[in-house]
Amino acid sequence: MGNRLPPLFRDISFHAQHSPIGAFASFTCGQFGSRGGFGLEIGKPGNQNIYIGIKSGDRSSNGPVKVLPFFEGASSNEAGRYDVERAAGPAEAHTTPKFPTYQPSEIRRHYGWATDAWKTDDFEFAIYTPFLQIPDLHRTSVGEWDRALIPAIYATLTVDNTRGTTSKTAFFAMQFAEAGVRMIPTIDDSSSGSSLGSTDDSIRCGFAFRRKFGISARCIDSQRNHDLDPRHEPSAHPIDGRPFGFNRFDLESGIKDPVPHQLGSVPGIGITVPPGQSRTLAIGIGFFFEGIATTGLEGDYFYSRAYRSLEHVLDSALSNIQHAIDAAHHLDEKLLRSTLSADQQFLIAHATRSYHGSTQLLDVGGEPYWIVNEGEYCMLNTLDLSVDQVFWELDQHPWVVKNLLDNFVRHYSYVDQIKVPKASAIQLMGKQAVDSPDVMNTPRTLGTTIGIEHYDIRPGGISFCHDQGIHNNFSPQGRSSYELPDLVGCFSHMSGEELCNWILIAAVYVARTGDLEWARANEHIIEACRTSLRNRADDSGIIVYDSLRCQSGSEITTYDSLDHSLAQTRSNLYMAVKAWASLRGLLHLRQSLGHADASDASKSIIDQAQRAARTVVKHANPDGVIPAVFEAENPGHASRILPAVEGLLYPQFWNEDVRNTAPELVKILKHHTLALLKDPQQRNLFPDGGLRLSSTSANSWMSKIAIFQHVCRSVLGLEADPEIKSIFDRADAAHVGWMLHPISAYWACSDQFVDGIARGSKYYPRIISSALWMREHAVHLQPTTCN
Amino acid sequence: MGNRLPPLFRDISFHAQHSPIGAFASFTCGQFGSRGGFGLEIGKPGNQNIYIGIKSGDRSSNGPVKVLPFFEGASSNEAGRYDVERAAGPAEAHTTPKFPTYQPSEIRRHYGWATDAWKTDDFEFAIYTPFLQIPDLHRTSVGEWDRALIPAIYATLTVDNTRGTTSKTAFFAMQFAEAGVRMIPTIDDSSSGSSLGSTDDSIRCGFAFRRKFGISARCIDSQRNHDLDPRHEPSAHPIDGRPFGFNRFDLESGIKDPVPHQLGSVPGIGITVPPGQSRTLAIGIGFFFEGIATTGLEGDYFYSRAYRSLEHVLDSALSNIQHAIDAAHHLDEKLLRSTLSADQQFLIAHATRSYHGSTQLLDVGGEPYWIVNEGEYCMLNTLDLSVDQVFWELDQHPWVVKNLLDNFVRHYSYVDQIKVPKASAIQLMGKQAVDSPDVMNTPRTLGTTIGIEHYDIRPGGISFCHDQGIHNNFSPQGRSSYELPDLVGCFSHMSGEELCNWILIAAVYVARTGDLEWARANEHIIEACRTSLRNRADDSGIIVYDSLRCQSGSEITTYDSLDHSLAQTRSNLYMAVKAWASLRGLLHLRQSLGHADASDASKSIIDQAQRAARTVVKHANPDGVIPAVFEAENPGHASRILPAVEGLLYPQFWNEDVRNTAPELVKILKHHTLALLKDPQQRNLFPDGGLRLSSTSANSWMSKIAIFQHVCRSVLGLEADPEIKSIFDRADAAHVGWMLHPISAYWACSDQFVDGIARGSKYYPRIISSALWMREHAVHLQPTTCN
Repeated sequence: MGNRLPPLFRDISFHAQHSPIGAFASFTCGQFGSRGGFGLEIGKPGNQNIYIGIKSGDRSSNGPVKVLPFFEGASSNEAGRYDVERAAGPAEAHTTPKFPTYQPSEIRRHYGWATDAWKTDDFEFAIYTPFLQIPDLHRTSVGEWDRALIPAIYATLTVDNTRGTTSKTAFFAMQFAEAGVRMIPTIDDSSSGSSLGSTDDSIRCGFAFRRKFGISARCIDSQRNHDLDPRHEPSAHPIDGRPFGFNRFDLESGIKDPVPHQLGSVPGIGITVPPGQSRTLAIGIGFFFEGIATTGLEGDYFYSRAYRSLEHVLDSALSNIQHAIDAAHHLDEKLLRSTLSADQQFLIAHATRSYHGSTQLLDVGGEPYWIVNEGEYCMLNTLDLSVDQVFWELDQHPWVVKNLLDNFVRHYSYVDQIKVPKASAIQLMGKQAVDSPDVMNTPRTLGTTIGIEHYDIRPGGISFCHDQGIHNNFSPQGRSSYELPDLVGCFSHMSGEELCNWILIAAVYVARTGDLEWARANEHIIEACRTSLRNRADDSGIIVYDSLRCQSGSEITTYDSLDHSLAQTRSNLYMAVKAWASLRGLLHLRQSLGHADASDASKSIIDQAQRAARTVVKHANPDGVIPAVFEAENPGHASRILPAVEGLLYPQFWNEDVRNTAPELVKILKHHTLALLKDPQQRNLFPDGGLRLSSTSANSWMSKIAIFQHVCRSVLGLEADPEIKSIFDRADAAHVGWMLHPISAYWACSDQFVDGIARGSKYYPRIISSALWMREHAVHLQPTTCN
Repeated sequence: MGNRLPPLFRDISFHAQHSPIGAFASFTCGQFGSRGGFGLEIGKPGNQNIYIGIKSGDRSSNGPVKVLPFFEGASSNEAGRYDVERAAGPAEAHTTPKFPTYQPSEIRRHYGWATDAWKTDDFEFAIYTPFLQIPDLHRTSVGEWDRALIPAIYATLTVDNTRGTTSKTAFFAMQFAEAGVRMIPTIDDSSSGSSLGSTDDSIRCGFAFRRKFGISARCIDSQRNHDLDPRHEPSAHPIDGRPFGFNRFDLESGIKDPVPHQLGSVPGIGITVPPGQSRTLAIGIGFFFEGIATTGLEGDYFYSRAYRSLEHVLDSALSNIQHAIDAAHHLDEKLLRSTLSADQQFLIAHATRSYHGSTQLLDVGGEPYWIVNEGEYCMLNTLDLSVDQVFWELDQHPWVVKNLLDNFVRHYSYVDQIKVPKASAIQLMGKQAVDSPDVMNTPRTLGTTIGIEHYDIRPGGISFCHDQGIHNNFSPQGRSSYELPDLVGCFSHMSGEELCNWILIAAVYVARTGDLEWARANEHIIEACRTSLRNRADDSGIIVYDSLRCQSGSEITTYDSLDHSLAQTRSNLYMAVKAWASLRGLLHLRQSLGHADASDASKSIIDQAQRAARTVVKHANPDGVIPAVFEAENPGHASRILPAVEGLLYPQFWNEDVRNTAPELVKILKHHTLALLKDPQQRNLFPDGGLRLSSTSANSWMSKIAIFQHVCRSVLGLEADPEIKSIFDRADAAHVGWMLHPISAYWACSDQFVDGIARGSKYYPRIISSALWMREHAVHLQPTTCN
């Protein structure tokens, strides 16, 4: 039950995205008054009311029920009884159940890395989401990965009635808005059949929604013979203590009526615990998607190599539940022992869940295909997310990074041309920037496009698509779902940044794994990347030319809906340092392949990197702050951005000490960062102390803040400064507050916050970049394996 | 374009459920201001806005668009421009398209048996749903049924711009509320490739939603060289006249922008027709469900034996479209030529579509499995619907009736006991009736249940479940999804009526097909039915004992939410005549099997039938009207019901002249019917002239009205009475009005009307019983075959 986890001390009403790995599936719950439950391939919380609670007396009694407030209409602000929306489904359902809910003060929530537990005086309910290492699926057999990839999570519902004087009936039920609920036939595993009768532990029951998801429960850990209050006799009802399934149009009828109705929309499972006894229901919560799940590239879920049906998943989950709980406790302990602050631990635990909810491991043509979906947007393998998630993936299952790199090369790379502006274009380019207030992901053609007659067209080189498709629909080869021509702003191309992203992922992958076989096989790609990055730069060494794919538009960065400070790729501080890091990454890759730094190609890389570093340094203002955009007439020139330092992160993965290889760059970036953090005007802080990535925007990205903080501490050594530590501690607390804001809290873990409220990039995987913080505390990041 | 169909003369704003056969799929459209479109396995209209219309000028022009009002927010009552709800999907979609719609006065709708066409001065749009005979799938190969079972329907969009002076761009687009839209890659079939260039007719383009449904279009019937106004030159734009696909967040951007956005939620196809030319876009509208679709019994769609993917379906539909249009016109002609009134033709055409939308032909374990879903409720093969649909099915593809009978025997039959009331029960039984106002399908335990201690338990016999499951979830063997114990009213058991239903279906099947092989193989079932029907009756010959499956409740009839007049099975007039017909059916089956009427078993059947007939006759009041319920203290005793005569329908299928075999019964029922129809108080009419099945209820079922009218004409010969003809003509007009009421019209064709508005049993298959009327006009009902 996650007993060792301390209770949360802040607002406990927030959704958590409980997910297996690779199933693009979640069971979301925890925000009071909100629907949640099962979500399969939808990028948002499910649409079910969840009723977890207790009825006084046995199931047939007229005793009251009392439930956790996990349903629409359950307000945490009023005591007592609530109307519940009429369930969808046959028009027969006119019931209006009303029942009391536990008040927040009556609930304690314990939120660990892999355990999410609610405790009341009547019962404990806990959900376990242990995440195990997925071994390289090219090299392992089913028995080595089936536990890691089971599309199920686990729960327990415990009623300790050893001191009670009457029976208590515990239940877990859900109200479905869509039609298709069914009972899973109750199975009695007792080998002796009816002659000796079944035991509490031999009965499995559950319910499902069509073939897609459902739950199965069985009693474990029943205590009859010890801890009993001697006043109580064993129950007179022989079926007490055995789990049962139910289904009616409303919760109370379902609990009470022994005959499930297949037309019902509120299925559930329950157990009556006689006085003097204690029971724990083990609950498997499973998902199953049969057949081909995607278009374009056609893949089915890799787990279907081991699991044949939803029922198979649920049976396996119930068989495996003790291992799963142990693994969850092990992970809880690991995070607890990290010495990270409670706020930091919360953010990591929250991020880990939402990351897993977006993961999708397919079998495409017999080969594994790793996908991380882009949260609410469900874009497949958005490459500018991948680069931020790679640290986590390299710790957990590094082969998925290789899989990603290969799939981008094979299916989603392209060779473009670039646009070299004529004088006429240069005059127009300052006005091309998006000069707008924060734009909430609105399509932006607000800036000025510049006809391609103002450009000379020259060879560009290889680059990579922003993503590989959306909503299970793979894009055509060499095309993302996101990028369009003729735009300035959102939905334009990201050729320059995605090129850097692929290089950086490749470099950290080879550095972390030593996989020279892969590096050798991809040397021609690495070389093509070098050429491409060179062609996109001028003497400044940084990317200054836009891809012809933009046509009259211009390239943007991953901060597609922030403001002008981080909107354009060209002559952008964030991109300049990232390009510098990419050049260092290319050099590292060449070193790994045995190429001397004195070789012509390596020399050209070193030279471009030095020029890029000098370009950054030279643009620093007299006060040491570097403009976000180097183009003087661009509105971004006045912006002050924290992500300037992001590129300093990567070299540490190949053991490069940037203080030695780029001392001037590091020095000016440290100066810049300190100036921004300690700015008397606090232009890079929100009023609550949260970090503002751009001084001119109310938009901030949690995943990028996490990287920024990590670079500050682990590369720039700023943690030694008590003032910085205090700023960061206060920021961590603010960021937790952002997640817990009632609007944000519906979406579990989100990335894009406007004035501290999740407004975009919701239900998002990328905040797993926060797990970088564990490195600072020398947490042994060895993943938990199946064995 | 269904040119020979006259335009509708009444309200043209109603949904029609355009469906292939056996795919449990519909493309619903036609009600102004409502969503519709694709619905797969949902029992209700789809959730898309549909934009069909014209833009002045070519696609890049700034000309206005004008669309049919097939989208939410398009009111037919105001001219001009409307706000359209923001599409769901990525948060980027903030656009608020506004465009003018055609007013009702600008639209003519032509609604034939298999063509539904809208004509404006600018274009014509027509949907074709030809229904072909499905050959016995046990005995035919794929090539003999693939056209009949293709999960697609067909449409054309024609712009005749031969007299125009500017280009017109026609389009068909949809706005999806759910995420997962994709473009189908444009295919150019021109064998010569780019050297000779593609032609208008060689290009196919389309869009889809994931792998589930979509459309594909190609140009046919382009007229360039004749009918041209000599003033016009061919278009200067070489791509004019070729179909194109698009996809953006809003319609107008999509039409205008040549680059589709994979993030868009408004995909479409279009074609620009230069002045002086005419074009027709052929459109395939397809569905595809991959893999196992059901639980319990596991089946996939039979069509997947011939079609491998949605794209395969769409390609095949486009290849087949001319045949399909020809078949649709053939069917239109057949109904037009029937000499049925326009109102009757409308009801049949409307019913045919909704029937097909509920059909689902599966492959279960290698064998075909025929299912008709129960409209909005999606119950599988509700047997009390099957018995009303059997006439149609026997005309179209009689083998599905055998399939249904067999599957009920194999999976959904049971043997019960019956409850013989002791004196103590008889005292209570009058109060057991549901005495309530019309209950809108509300769960009813309103009546008084009677403990089984008041009964003697005796052998019952074989009967059949109410249904086989719900929402693709098959029920456990021998159990329906609907029936529950301990109820009086809705959701109670229908053992008696379903027994009669199986007998009647078997009898008409054998009579119609002469399939003695089947009859012989099932003689033991027929014999078991005889025993069962005998055991449920007392000396009265009619069903008076309830099944023990009811426990403390009592059996109900298919009129589960009408009132007391048709609620209970026991001692019910409707059931008495139905049981009499079932006995005659058993006798016919025995005759077919060569058993003499003088055999003991046949004698016992004849005897029971005579007793049943006498029971009905004897309960007639002095005025010749027979009470709905024979129990004097039952509130139904005062009700006057039209369905009393329903049972007279079946014997005509085995060529029995009931005027000879049961003259007294026929005489009293004719008297009863005339008394009700000509009642000076008009208790069995609604104020609009519609027929009221029970004098005491505002609930009326259209499918049952159709059967009643048919019996009146074809068995009782009442059509010779001009007063009756006038009443029926007025009733037909009223019933059309019921369907067209704005609340009803959303649900296409519905069955259960309360005061003339569809309130239950919506989107329903059963009204196909109206096709019985074609028999009265000697319409050659030979189905249209694939060849």
